[in-house]
Amino acid sequence: MKVGIVGGGQLGRMLGLAGVPLGMQFRFLEPAADCPASRLGEIIRTPYDDPEGLERFAQDLGFATYEFENVPVQTARWLEERVALAPGARALEVAQDRIREKTTLRDLGVPVQAFASISSASEIAAAVERVGLPAVLKTRRMGYDGKGQRVLRGNGVGVASVQQAWDALGRVPCILEAFVPFEAEVSQVAVRARRAGGGAHHAFWPLTQNEHRAGILWKSEAPAPCDRDGSLASSARTHVQRLMDELDYVGVIAVEFFVAHGALVANEIAPRVHNSGHWTIDGAETSQFENHLRAVTGLPLGSTDLRSACIMFNLVGKLPLSSRVLAQSGAHLHLYGKSARAGRKVGHVTLTGQDPAALQQAAAALAAALPWDASGAEPLAPDALAQSPAHLR
Amino acid sequence: MKVGIVGGGQLGRMLGLAGVPLGMQFRFLEPAADCPASRLGEIIRTPYDDPEGLERFAQDLGFATYEFENVPVQTARWLEERVALAPGARALEVAQDRIREKTTLRDLGVPVQAFASISSASEIAAAVERVGLPAVLKTRRMGYDGKGQRVLRGNGVGVASVQQAWDALGRVPCILEAFVPFEAEVSQVAVRARRAGGGAHHAFWPLTQNEHRAGILWKSEAPAPCDRDGSLASSARTHVQRLMDELDYVGVIAVEFFVAHGALVANEIAPRVHNSGHWTIDGAETSQFENHLRAVTGLPLGSTDLRSACIMFNLVGKLPLSSRVLAQSGAHLHLYGKSARAGRKVGHVTLTGQDPAALQQAAAALAAALPWDASGAEPLAPDALAQSPAHLR
Repeated sequence: MKVGIVGGGQLGRMLGLAGVPLGMQFRFLEPAADCPASRLGEIIRTPYDDPEGLERFAQDLGFATYEFENVPVQTARWLEERVALAPGARALEVAQDRIREKTTLRDLGVPVQAFASISSASEIAAAVERVGLPAVLKTRRMGYDGKGQRVLRGNGVGVASVQQAWDALGRVPCILEAFVPFEAEVSQVAVRARRAGGGAHHAFWPLTQNEHRAGILWKSEAPAPCDRDGSLASSARTHVQRLMDELDYVGVIAVEFFVAHGALVANEIAPRVHNSGHWTIDGAETSQFENHLRAVTGLPLGSTDLRSACIMFNLVGKLPLSSRVLAQSGAHLHLYGKSARAGRKVGHVTLTGQDPAALQQAAAALAAALPWDASGAEPLAPDALAQSPAHLR
Repeated sequence: MKVGIVGGGQLGRMLGLAGVPLGMQFRFLEPAADCPASRLGEIIRTPYDDPEGLERFAQDLGFATYEFENVPVQTARWLEERVALAPGARALEVAQDRIREKTTLRDLGVPVQAFASISSASEIAAAVERVGLPAVLKTRRMGYDGKGQRVLRGNGVGVASVQQAWDALGRVPCILEAFVPFEAEVSQVAVRARRAGGGAHHAFWPLTQNEHRAGILWKSEAPAPCDRDGSLASSARTHVQRLMDELDYVGVIAVEFFVAHGALVANEIAPRVHNSGHWTIDGAETSQFENHLRAVTGLPLGSTDLRSACIMFNLVGKLPLSSRVLAQSGAHLHLYGKSARAGRKVGHVTLTGQDPAALQQAAAALAAALPWDASGAEPLAPDALAQSPAHLR
């Protein structure tokens, strides 16, 4: 069975590693030379919207999916008419536009922060009045890893500051979101598949708690320590199941939430496998990558049960010394075959362990030893370090 | 870091899948077209002893290993002079010749059955006298999966029968081994690495119990149910550690034992990753494939601890319906990308589970559903089904 994947980055690479043992063959549509997925399948090296490249990509494919949400919607629609594409183009459309994303969530009864659209200078004052300050101004499209946003907070912040920020972001269509003074960030990674006889099968990995540095995911821990009584996980499952059903979603989805005053506020949807689910390779019965492929190709889903508690760290900007990482008991190293560059995710390390105290101790030791260089990231206001965004790849 | 692997079969494929996340790149020396490892690295498609192919294979390699024990010793010696080859050529020499193998084990104090060499017709009578009957006659070299052997057992068996069997095997150098009326078959998969500061690090996966069908491994279960008090595992570790130290071994090794009258009798050495260790991908903290690569490339070893009890079944001769296998909770499917052919190993399924009774029940259901076609295997005497050999790939 041949599966086409739009995008050949590390998510494509890890999908490939999960699918090869299932007997799947892969074809990637990826313009970049020497991409992380290059060893795991055939590469169609053209832009994502090149008609001739798309023809070659789609030829004889049984199934197709994508590994990033900025796939052009026309590409998704074109594919949808020719092969079984999952998730569908509609999920992409919702996730690509922060206004549609927040509106969809709000209409489903999922709590979101106050938000308003800003498409012209004349809308700024009303948006500020509706949302209040402090707030975060984000481009409606194409933001990730803290890029394309400005935090508006502190003494003297007002309509003029929002105007300046909008100018700085290039006067493109934006969303103004109320700043959420959160206690923690969590994500719910989930999967939905159609059942052969009709209806759907949903499965949810344990709620994951995330920490960012300079807008880039640094650490994910599962199960989420902030969810002492399991009530956050229970809410998250309800919200995400509602969203998946609304979108008639097929595949893995991740929804990021803030935890504020002990309750969830939905922040962002990723219609794909997600960085905060990388720990599932080593810590869950079935990884997000394998279950995504099972859902996309119509195979039964595997258990999402936890095998052991996990703490994952991203490797950003610099490669660690493998021997040093692997000397740590319970450390599982995942490199993406990328050269190091400031701000670039080049791999991750997952620590697994049965003893909670030992796991925390190992994580502290490992965190201190891991390199991190995000100096190439777009500069953000200092408090944006906390109020991080989240198209976490 | 580039690792060369002699052989591009399923073991090479699974080594590749384990090594890609560690940032390793692979080059395989494999004459067969479209081999299972073909997607996981560069393929040098020449015979194993082709000088020009070997030159290309060895160029710029940091490390080399092999995935089957019938690599020509000259090839291993040639490689050893140019790259860091592990396990070394000596381990190959011992494992390729059943007389050297048994002699090495016996000299180390590891219990083995009575055996004798037969290189000419004149040695047959003395060999029968030394070993006794019933016995098994095997070619000294190149046997695997029950090929190249004859079981000599039953009424009227005598020197003449051994003579006939030797004729049937082509009068090549053989070993006559006493038939062991065993209660169970087990294997110890282990790994040894050199420590940076000198000395060695040994690690042992839980003892595995094996069942064969027509000389081909059908089922492996870990930990071995026959080892109720752990004494067999303890003996196996002592024996295998002694063997690895004697060979100054680097990498994964498997030693198969019969359990007879409650004690171990060593049957065979495989100087490589082994079919009875495939369950470690899903059931151990670190798989045999990852630890082999770690040892070969000088990285620290990972824990060999059990994550959950496992039962593995080989898929032989026919491909199962993936949807049927994956509908079984706890089933992990591993296909090798081979076309089906009678007697050929095309994949395996590992069942994991925390509850022993549920695991046994799932295994019974799965075993009944899996295809098996070994009809192409070399015919053996009926009772050879029990007295199986074991170059299990």
